[in-house]
Amino acid sequence: MPSIAVLPGDGIGKEVINEGLKILNFMGEKYNLNLKFEEFEVGAERYLKSGELIPDFLLKRLETFDAIYLGAVGDPRVPAGILEHGILLKLRFHFDQYVNLRPIKLLNDRFSPLKKKGVNEINFTVIRENTEGLYAGIGGILKKDTQDEVAIQEMISTRKGVERIIRYAFEFAKNNKGKLTLCDKSNVLTYSHGLWLRVFEELKKEYPDVQTDHYYVDAITMKMVRNPEIFDVIVTCNMFGDIITDLGAEIQGGMGLAASGNINPNSVSMFEPVHGSAPDIAGKGIANPIAAILAAAMILEYFGRKDLAEKVEGAIKTSIDENLLSQDMGGNLSTSEVGDEIVKILKRG
Amino acid sequence: MPSIAVLPGDGIGKEVINEGLKILNFMGEKYNLNLKFEEFEVGAERYLKSGELIPDFLLKRLETFDAIYLGAVGDPRVPAGILEHGILLKLRFHFDQYVNLRPIKLLNDRFSPLKKKGVNEINFTVIRENTEGLYAGIGGILKKDTQDEVAIQEMISTRKGVERIIRYAFEFAKNNKGKLTLCDKSNVLTYSHGLWLRVFEELKKEYPDVQTDHYYVDAITMKMVRNPEIFDVIVTCNMFGDIITDLGAEIQGGMGLAASGNINPNSVSMFEPVHGSAPDIAGKGIANPIAAILAAAMILEYFGRKDLAEKVEGAIKTSIDENLLSQDMGGNLSTSEVGDEIVKILKRG
Ligand SMILES: CC(C)[C@H](C(=O)O)[C@@H](O)C(=O)O
Ligand SMILES: CC(C)[C@H](C(=O)O)[C@@H](O)C(=O)O
Repeated sequence: MPSIAVLPGDGIGKEVINEGLKILNFMGEKYNLNLKFEEFEVGAERYLKSGELIPDFLLKRLETFDAIYLGAVGDPRVPAGILEHGILLKLRFHFDQYVNLRPIKLLNDRFSPLKKKGVNEINFTVIRENTEGLYAGIGGILKKDTQDEVAIQEMISTRKGVERIIRYAFEFAKNNKGKLTLCDKSNVLTYSHGLWLRVFEELKKEYPDVQTDHYYVDAITMKMVRNPEIFDVIVTCNMFGDIITDLGAEIQGGMGLAASGNINPNSVSMFEPVHGSAPDIAGKGIANPIAAILAAAMILEYFGRKDLAEKVEGAIKTSIDENLLSQDMGGNLSTSEVGDEIVKILKRG
Repeated sequence: MPSIAVLPGDGIGKEVINEGLKILNFMGEKYNLNLKFEEFEVGAERYLKSGELIPDFLLKRLETFDAIYLGAVGDPRVPAGILEHGILLKLRFHFDQYVNLRPIKLLNDRFSPLKKKGVNEINFTVIRENTEGLYAGIGGILKKDTQDEVAIQEMISTRKGVERIIRYAFEFAKNNKGKLTLCDKSNVLTYSHGLWLRVFEELKKEYPDVQTDHYYVDAITMKMVRNPEIFDVIVTCNMFGDIITDLGAEIQGGMGLAASGNINPNSVSMFEPVHGSAPDIAGKGIANPIAAILAAAMILEYFGRKDLAEKVEGAIKTSIDENLLSQDMGGNLSTSEVGDEIVKILKRG
């Protein structure tokens, strides 16, 4: 019986996770999935009350779950970086969630910001390394606050870290359209991305059926706008993955439609909408829950029910076709009405 | 009398620089600019013949010029990285060209890849730090080619380096629409970009008339697609500048329309089209020379003749309106015909 730790977090996190849970509960009952949920408080409230981000006992509790369903963290009362580091990055690193999986899939032509690209062209997956690179948090500052100050930030790549993510990407591509693109900057980052390129070339030989290509990160941003249809699966480092997945979210229609999985196939994986806590609209009941519902669909797929994930995605598509949407998407429904309508669509078919 | 060292380089570099020179020669004569040109061979041919990239005696010669006009380097016969490092990056570092100036300006609505954004919305400048950060070339590899390999690439930022580029950007913004945006990832790169953010906050106080804002690099890629009109001047580090200027080139209509200046106000500055040597179309006379001509216009502006740079840009706009373009832009002219037409337009008005 798959168990899910629910961490709604801050701001609209709570509101959108509610809708995701509505869908998971409905699917769970209809298909006898026996999903168990337990909710935990993390985020600004807890931090401001007690100074706690994720206390050790909570980390231990989370270890007993199969998956984590995270809303969003971030609050204007807390200095930038603290909640992101103490919660989001903490969980990614603690559970060694080395795969950040980001589907870039446009669900309806009208949401494409691009003149010539629609649902047939914008449909690929970015696989971002999620535990090392520039995110190692290693470095330092010499002579701080003087004219001679030098600041160093280390981009650290390990053979193990690079190999496992590239291997994951090859396996993923094998089960998709069979094409894998490496995105790096090995012409300049000769040490760190030299390793990426070498490992990529090596693993290629083990996957003769996967077609491969290679772009520098600067060129890939152009390609994502000009020819997104050439991509099936893109694998890249932590920092570049951060950048190109946000660009990807935009071409798939914006943050309101982007979900992400932080996966360790042998540990606890975590699913989240990509958007933040949006304090400006929090509490008004107008947040768009689709990204959170797409993250819920990713949970179903992660539990082996790709068929059900597709049903949820299909229902979201229908809700878009029928304009049963929140205001930011051009509709006039509240957050919970959007969730209700998607449940209705799921009921109906 | 301003002197320009011309380095056509490889592939289409030669072809497009020819057209840029046509325009510079015409403007030089018409407005008595007394421009002096001298051409030097760098690139694949020289490297393959002699193993030389830029020999010291050539560097010394280049030091005597006011500006360098570079075509492109890159050739399939030379392993990736060698010419880029040995020529392009070498010149940027040798002359400490710490400003990489990239205008992102759409010249005609029909070239915008974005549904809702045209010439009124896509018009800003990216100022990229050009001498440090991840481009320092510093790092190393431990236990290479073993399972325990660790590769480290250092992102190094100095107070001096960060301050001078941010100051340049504030000055630049002051003389533009008066808005400066910092693009960083200080929430994760706490050391290196912590320095960027601190210096930015500090310099703000010296420029009370410049309005400022701040986006993380991931968010800025979204904004560049969704709301490019909010930008006037963006300042960012070397690596992020590399990425977002290519994205910028795409939203301004593609590489065929993007030029770049590598500037050290106290040394030799270098101007180049952003595109590469395009070996696949080299020698066919079909390359699009507009980016090289825009780089030539940047040279005129750098020599204090903004008025003339604007005339050249105006002529390019007219050539676009009249579809006097190369094939990649939807026209049917050869490279040199495009140059000829732009000269004709300049003559006429
Ligand atoms: C909030 C931030 C630390 C995080 C990241 O940089 O990874 C976010 O941008 C993301 O992509 O999930
Ligand atoms: C060719 C390459 C080294 C260079 C860079 O990364 O700076 C290029 O992409 C650019 O932006 O001028």
